[in-house]
Order: sequence, then C-alpha cells, then structure tokens
Amino acid sequence: MLQVKTPEEVLALIQKEFVPLTGRTEHVPLVSAAGRVLAEEIVSAEYVPDFDRSTVDGYACRAADTFGCSVSIPAVLTVAGEVLMGRESGLELEPGSCACVPTGGAIPKGADCAVMLEYTEDFGDGTAGILKAGAPGMNIIFRGDDLIPGKTVLKAGRILRAQDIGALAAIGRSSVPVVRKLKVGVLSTGDELVPPESVPAPGQMRDVNSTMLAALLSRSGADPVPYGIVKDDEQALRETFRDALYECDAVILSGGSSVGAKDAACRVIADAGELLLHGIAVKPGKPTILGKAGNKPLIGLPGHPVAALFAARLFVLPLLDRLSGCEQQRLPVPAKLSESVSANHGRAQVVACRLERRDGILTAVPVRSKSGLITLLAGSDGYFIIDRDCEGLPKGADVQVYPDRE
Amino acid sequence: MLQVKTPEEVLALIQKEFVPLTGRTEHVPLVSAAGRVLAEEIVSAEYVPDFDRSTVDGYACRAADTFGCSVSIPAVLTVAGEVLMGRESGLELEPGSCACVPTGGAIPKGADCAVMLEYTEDFGDGTAGILKAGAPGMNIIFRGDDLIPGKTVLKAGRILRAQDIGALAAIGRSSVPVVRKLKVGVLSTGDELVPPESVPAPGQMRDVNSTMLAALLSRSGADPVPYGIVKDDEQALRETFRDALYECDAVILSGGSSVGAKDAACRVIADAGELLLHGIAVKPGKPTILGKAGNKPLIGLPGHPVAALFAARLFVLPLLDRLSGCEQQRLPVPAKLSESVSANHGRAQVVACRLERRDGILTAVPVRSKSGLITLLAGSDGYFIIDRDCEGLPKGADVQVYPDRE
Repeated sequence: MLQVKTPEEVLALIQKEFVPLTGRTEHVPLVSAAGRVLAEEIVSAEYVPDFDRSTVDGYACRAADTFGCSVSIPAVLTVAGEVLMGRESGLELEPGSCACVPTGGAIPKGADCAVMLEYTEDFGDGTAGILKAGAPGMNIIFRGDDLIPGKTVLKAGRILRAQDIGALAAIGRSSVPVVRKLKVGVLSTGDELVPPESVPAPGQMRDVNSTMLAALLSRSGADPVPYGIVKDDEQALRETFRDALYECDAVILSGGSSVGAKDAACRVIADAGELLLHGIAVKPGKPTILGKAGNKPLIGLPGHPVAALFAARLFVLPLLDRLSGCEQQRLPVPAKLSESVSANHGRAQVVACRLERRDGILTAVPVRSKSGLITLLAGSDGYFIIDRDCEGLPKGADVQVYPDRE
Repeated sequence: MLQVKTPEEVLALIQKEFVPLTGRTEHVPLVSAAGRVLAEEIVSAEYVPDFDRSTVDGYACRAADTFGCSVSIPAVLTVAGEVLMGRESGLELEPGSCACVPTGGAIPKGADCAVMLEYTEDFGDGTAGILKAGAPGMNIIFRGDDLIPGKTVLKAGRILRAQDIGALAAIGRSSVPVVRKLKVGVLSTGDELVPPESVPAPGQMRDVNSTMLAALLSRSGADPVPYGIVKDDEQALRETFRDALYECDAVILSGGSSVGAKDAACRVIADAGELLLHGIAVKPGKPTILGKAGNKPLIGLPGHPVAALFAARLFVLPLLDRLSGCEQQRLPVPAKLSESVSANHGRAQVVACRLERRDGILTAVPVRSKSGLITLLAGSDGYFIIDRDCEGLPKGADVQVYPDRE
C-alpha cells in the first residue's frame, strides 16, 4: 500500500510528477482574454508612448527661457502656435517661443518642458507669460518612457487581469496567446446517488459532487466534461473512466463511499495508469487518490461533498495550475481567529471560514458543523489549515486563510 | 461647482443615491450559476439528509446492547441483515441484534448507533462481536441534521461559489434565481484615440480604456456593451451617450483629456441626468464624474488608463454591486510594505502592488512608475491606499491591500 502523505508532500509530488502541457496555445481576441492563462511571454515591439507627450494642459517651451521668472517678473515668450490632440505638432520652437499644448498632446521639437496653464498668462498679443520656472523634462512623458522594443510586458503563466488587457491594448495586441482550457472529466460513482433534480427515494442521496466540481472547475478556468453517475459496478466504472481519460486532459472520479466501491475506484485508477498516492493526512479529504496516465492526472476524490470540495481546492486546482503552466500563486491571507477551534491530533485539519472585518481586523469566523455536510459550508469564503501536530487554536490566533479564488 | 469628495464620501454617496434594481431575476441552470449574484433567499423545502445515515462502514445496533463490552469480552449480537447503499433498509432491529451498514447507508429502525468495522468481528455463524461500546447517536447523521424545511440555506446577494452550488444541489435545486447581468455601456472620447489594432499616427494614442474596462466589467459579472471611440465633438458625444443610456443599465464615458473635452464630458453627463459628483480627492483618479438618470449611473472616468482603472475598481465596481444587490464585501487583506513609498499630501493616493509571500509574511511590493502608464501595472495583483493626511509609508508598514477580484 502507498504511504499516506502530508498536504505539503502531495503538492511537491504534483510538481515532480506532472509538467506543463505543451502545444496548447490558442489565440483569442484581447477582449476575451481576461481570466485566461497567458501562454507566451509578451514583448513590446514598439515605443510606448511613441512620441513625447505633455501630462498637463499648458505651454510647451524651453526650460532655460523660464529660469528666474516669477509672478511679478514673468518670462514673456512668443506663442508660436497650438498643438492639437491627435496631430503631429509640426512646430519647431525657437528660443524665446512656446506653444499651447493639451494634456496628452505632442511636445513640439525644441521644447523640453511643459508649464501648467495655471502658471501662465495669455497676454493676448501673441505672447504668453510664464509665471513659474520650468525644468528640463517637467510634465513630459518621453517616447519609450513606458516601453521600448524588446522589453517584457507580461510573463507567460500569468492569469490575465484588466490591467494586463490594458497593457496589451497599449502595445496594439488585438489577440493574445493563451493556454487552451483543460478538459476535465467529472464522474460520480455510488449506488445511492441520484441526479440533483430527482427526489431521492429512501436510502438515496442526490449527487452533489458532479455539479459542485463542475462549478469549481469552470470558475477556475477549466472546461468540465460531465460523465454522470456510474453505479458501483467495477466494469461500468472502468469503461466510463477510460472514455473520460481518452477524451479529457484529466479525470476526476468522486465517490465510492462503501468499502467495496472505494477499492474499485482505486483499482480502476491503478489500472488506467500509475498510482501515485492513496490517502492524504488531511481531514476532511483523507481518501484522496492520485495517479497518472502519461501526463494526465487521474484523481479519486472522496464521495463526501465537503471532503471532495476541500480535496479539490487543496490539490486539484494546484494540479490544473501545474498542467496549464499557471504561475499565479494561491497566497493565503493572515487573519485573526474569531473563536477557538479544536483539532484532531495527527492529521492536518481543514476548517472552512467566513471572512469579516471586525474593528478593522480581518477575522476568520469558522463555519461549524456537527456533520460536516455541504449545506453548512454555503456562505463560506475560504479555509485555513490547522497543522497536524496542533491540537487546536485559541480565539485570536493568527491563521492563514486561503480565500476562494473562483 | 460640486465639491471634491473623499473616496469614503463617494462610497457613501453611492449607497445613498442608488438602490438595488428590482425585477431583474432570471433563472439559470445550477451548473451555470457559479459567479452570479443570488437574487432571492434560498430556503430548504426538505430534510437533508432525508434519513438517518451511517458515517462509517460497520454495524448498526442499539448502543445499550454494547455497554461494557471490550476486546476480551465482546458483545455478541445477531446479524439481522445487511443494509445496501441506496436502498431503504426495511430492517427493524430487535434488542440483541445488529445489521451490516456501509458509509452513507440508512440506519435501520431500532438502531441508535453505528460501530466501526475495525471494532467488530464477524463470527461467521450469523452473529457478530462488538469490541468497543457504542453510545446513542454515535456515527450517525440524523434526518434533518443538515437542513430542515424552512431553514435558510443562502441569503440573497451572495456571489455563488462551488460550495453554494453544492448546497443547492443537495436540496434538489436544478435552477437558481440570479440577478440578470447589468448592461454597462462603455465609450471613449478623444481626438487622439485610435482602436487598439491600429498603428497610431504621430500624435495619436491607442484607446486602451474601452478594452480594459470591458475586461474588468465582464470578469466582474457585468455585460459590457461597446460604443467605440467618439471624437471630441459635443453633439456626437451627446448622441452616443444617450443611445447608450437608453440601451444600458449604466454608462461609462472615459476620456476627455483636453480642457474642452473634459468640460464637454461633464456637460453631456449633466444634461443626461443629475450631476452628483465632479472630482474625487484621490490620486490617480481625481477627474471622475458621477451622475444619475433615475437609478442609472452616469460615470465619467479619466482618460488616463491607470486613473481610469483605479477609479473603476474603487467606485464603479462597488456601484455595480449596489445596483445588483450584491452583498459580497470587498475586504482588504493586511500586508507588510516591502519598501518605503512617498505620497502627496492632501489627496488619498492609490498604489498598485504585487502580492508575495516573503518569509511567510504577506508582502505588498509597490509597482513603481515614473509616468504611471498602464503597461507598468501589468502584473500587479491589487492596490492599497495611502491616507490623504499621510506623507508616505516606511518599509515594513502595515497596509491594507485590495486584491483584484476578477
């Protein structure tokens, strides 16, 4: 039997056993690229901005012409013209002259600063007074200040956000290379399971995991592929699992609550590839199975929805990140515990919590449940982990909360 | 002229001036409901679970029959039968008897506890030995432990996550009432602007805001409606703005970099409804305009992409949350500042940052830029705010970071 591993060991195993998929790049329009994983480094081919721009409404001039001026002794300059938005200025300023320039307008040749309108006076006779001395470079964004050709804009593996889309628009990218979404097969097994829309007969339960995992996967950037509910029949399970494995990049099998079914799930996964792991020292989530067929993960999750959810958040999402080359880390945030929590010695314990701000302090409020059933988790915001060698945490303890990312 | 307001005043103004939209409920299939705002409170109509279930593989029995037993003196019980997964047990246990039961199986009538298989022995003669005393209720989830009819499962205004979808599946909801997505018109104005796919002529700039804001809106659960780039022509702007206002639930106009254009944007918004705000004491983002036509927000954002992005995150997203009745708070997370940051006195300053874990501590690494252009923000994870009466923060200072939610 494979040894039960700690959560840290499982995450290390994932990095060791799986590699980012190659040849998975697709190009999508920029406006649809948010939330996708960038497949290639993006390098600028241009200068941004492509011309020297004013950051203020005012007058472009030579700073040297304004040295020593003041409100009482303005520097009087000849107004050589006006720069229009969106046009090349065409002007070339001689010493002693200036030009009207709007915010974002092109700085004319010869000028090396822009003075804000508030510090100028239009004398109305073709001259303007500068009331406050400029300095070379003042109020100008120079060509290439933002980007020059060859500079990296974004690294591969980034989940694209609004600011990244903005940066890509700025350098003229209308489409973006992103990692094609991973197809993840999801199947549930159990004689007791009926579809969520059914009314369970006595002894039956609704299949929660298929829909819940599909929601988690699609909100996490994957494409869930439903394979439905398979009865506790090893041959049927084997066939459906093989179909899913053929059609998908990864397969998640959840369920197998009874002893026989648990073993069957494990055998089906072992037969389809190589078994890497059976059992994680975490509560809930212990009966998690991990295998691989080539670089395709074969995942067995507990049938219990809460355990399945935590195991999916703890291990499946990082595994999919690994496959898609996503470099975005899932960082925990520090919070204070609102009340004491006891834990079982010997296994890391996952505790669902709500996040609230109390007296300006980010506070983790544990979601308690006698039975640990899924409806009690409704409304939670994330989870924290109590170490295996810790018997509990007092009220006010510092915890590291992993907020739900979806 | 309207007074410049602080960010807090603006958020209070949004709560005061706008109300959640009514009559916006649509029903979507459960599997597509993740990420949507729940429109109505969800109350259970059922008992969950609907029958007493075992949480272990083992024997269901009467606890009283096992009192005082041990490994050396087992309680010997008659095996009355076996409970099958997904079936009503049909059994009714007499005193002195027990039944095999799988995890999740129905507890037979008469039994009040389940003893784990590990603490039992099958004598093979129709009897089993119980090696460890049970207690009433042990290893049983009772009918309604999780939910009873009339109990609230989820409150309206929640952004649905995987665990909520799981809870809804558990109570048999195959569709969910969610708030229809808000249609938000987006238009840019500026004679210097060209579409992102164009090569700007001298003096021109690519329109970054339209695509960036569309990405932000769609990742935040709204439906952006593009109205393109409008030249700095007040009549043209007025007409496009009115079209957008007619067709959408809110309109965002960005741009107007030059003095004349700024005034035009303000007049167009004022003419279309009531002007609530012109100018926010925040840097960048000061030239933000807010108005309303009925309950429809009219928003003017700065043309500068970085300022537009921050103003959208700070004010537009909370405004859309207000309209959709979303109750999810945007909570900041505490982090340590990686290096000192200076600030301008007199205005709250928004600083973009990356989030990293350094020596186990969540660390905010400011993204610095001379020019504050959008490409320098690519790769940031969120922002923090330096108070208006603070001249800067030293390395190691505590900051409250608002992580990007999209």
